[in-house]
Amino acid sequence: MSDPRPPDPKPRRMVQNKERVGLVLVHTGDGKGKSTSAFGLALRAVGHGMRVHVIQFIKGSRDYGELDTLAKLGVTVERAGEGFTWEVRSDERQRELAAWGLARAQEAIARGLDVLVLDEVNIVLGKGFLPVETLLELLKTRPPELHVVCTGRYAPDALIEAADLVTRHELVKHPFQRGVRAQPGVEF
Amino acid sequence: MSDPRPPDPKPRRMVQNKERVGLVLVHTGDGKGKSTSAFGLALRAVGHGMRVHVIQFIKGSRDYGELDTLAKLGVTVERAGEGFTWEVRSDERQRELAAWGLARAQEAIARGLDVLVLDEVNIVLGKGFLPVETLLELLKTRPPELHVVCTGRYAPDALIEAADLVTRHELVKHPFQRGVRAQPGVEF
Repeated sequence: MSDPRPPDPKPRRMVQNKERVGLVLVHTGDGKGKSTSAFGLALRAVGHGMRVHVIQFIKGSRDYGELDTLAKLGVTVERAGEGFTWEVRSDERQRELAAWGLARAQEAIARGLDVLVLDEVNIVLGKGFLPVETLLELLKTRPPELHVVCTGRYAPDALIEAADLVTRHELVKHPFQRGVRAQPGVEF
Repeated sequence: MSDPRPPDPKPRRMVQNKERVGLVLVHTGDGKGKSTSAFGLALRAVGHGMRVHVIQFIKGSRDYGELDTLAKLGVTVERAGEGFTWEVRSDERQRELAAWGLARAQEAIARGLDVLVLDEVNIVLGKGFLPVETLLELLKTRPPELHVVCTGRYAPDALIEAADLVTRHELVKHPFQRGVRAQPGVEF
C-alpha cells in the first residue's frame, strides 16, 4: 500500500508564507458533506483569524445547526434562498434571490473578506437561476487573496474549469437506503 | 446597497423527529475535505447542543486552525498522533498511539457523548496500526444514539460494510497541480 500524500508544510511556516493565493474551491457531486466541508473550512479559517462570509443559496427554509454556531464565531451568514425548487413560488423568484445573493456577496467582498462561501450556488447555476458568467466575473474581479468556496450539485463545467480545487463527493452508501430518517447533527 | 434580508427559518420539524439513530459515517477517498467535513459536522452538532469529542489520529504534529476553534465551542479534542508514517519513530509507536486513541474514545463515550469523530482513523486501520475488529467492537457496543465519524483514506472494507453513510471524496483538481502552495485556511 502506498504512503499517504506527503503532509502539508508546517503551518507556522505557511502562515508566514507571504505568497497568499486566493483559491476557488468547488464541492460538487451527489455525496454528502459538500456544505459541511465548506463550513468546516470556515471554522478553520476563523481559527486563522480570517474574515469569512457565507451566502446560502437555495436553502433557507430550514434552520441548520451550524449557522448559529458560525455566527457565534463571527462568521457572517446571509440567506439568499427560500428552499428547493418546489418550495419557491416561481423560477423568477429563484432568479431574484440568486441575483440578490450575489449582490450581497459583492458587498461583503467590498467590506473586506478572506473567505467567501457560496453555499449551494452550484445548484443555482446549474438550474440557470444565475448566469455562470456572473459568478465567473465575480471570481475574475475579486481581490487576489480571497478564497471562494462554491458548493452544491450540478457545478457547471465553466466553473469547474475556473476552479483551483474541485472535489466530487460521491455517495457510496446512505442510511436512507435502509429507511433511516435524517438525523439532527448529521443531516442538517 | 441591496436590502439586508433577515432570515426567517421555519420550525425545525426535523429536529422534532424523536427517532434518533446513531449513525456510522465514513469519509474516505483521495479528495480533500474528509476531516474538514467531519469538523463541519461537529460544528453543526454543537449547534444542536450535542456533545462532541474528536480523537485525531496520525495528525498531531501540526497545528490545525480548526482545533482551537472547536475547543472554544466546547468540542473536546485529543490527539493520538505524532505525524505521518515517516515522522513517527516506529510502527510500534503508531500502534501504541492508535490503541491509546481508541481507549480515550471509549472513555469519552463512557462520560456521555452524542458525536465521536475519529479523524484519520481509516489510515490507522488501513495501515494495520489498529485492528479493524477493535473499532468494529467499539461501534457494536456503543450507545445506540451515538454518531461516529471515521475519516481518512484507506477505509477498510469491513468498516465500509459496517457504516451507514459512506462518502468518497474524489480529487478532481488540485492547485498543487499548478504549483500553488498550501494556503492557510484552506489546506490546514
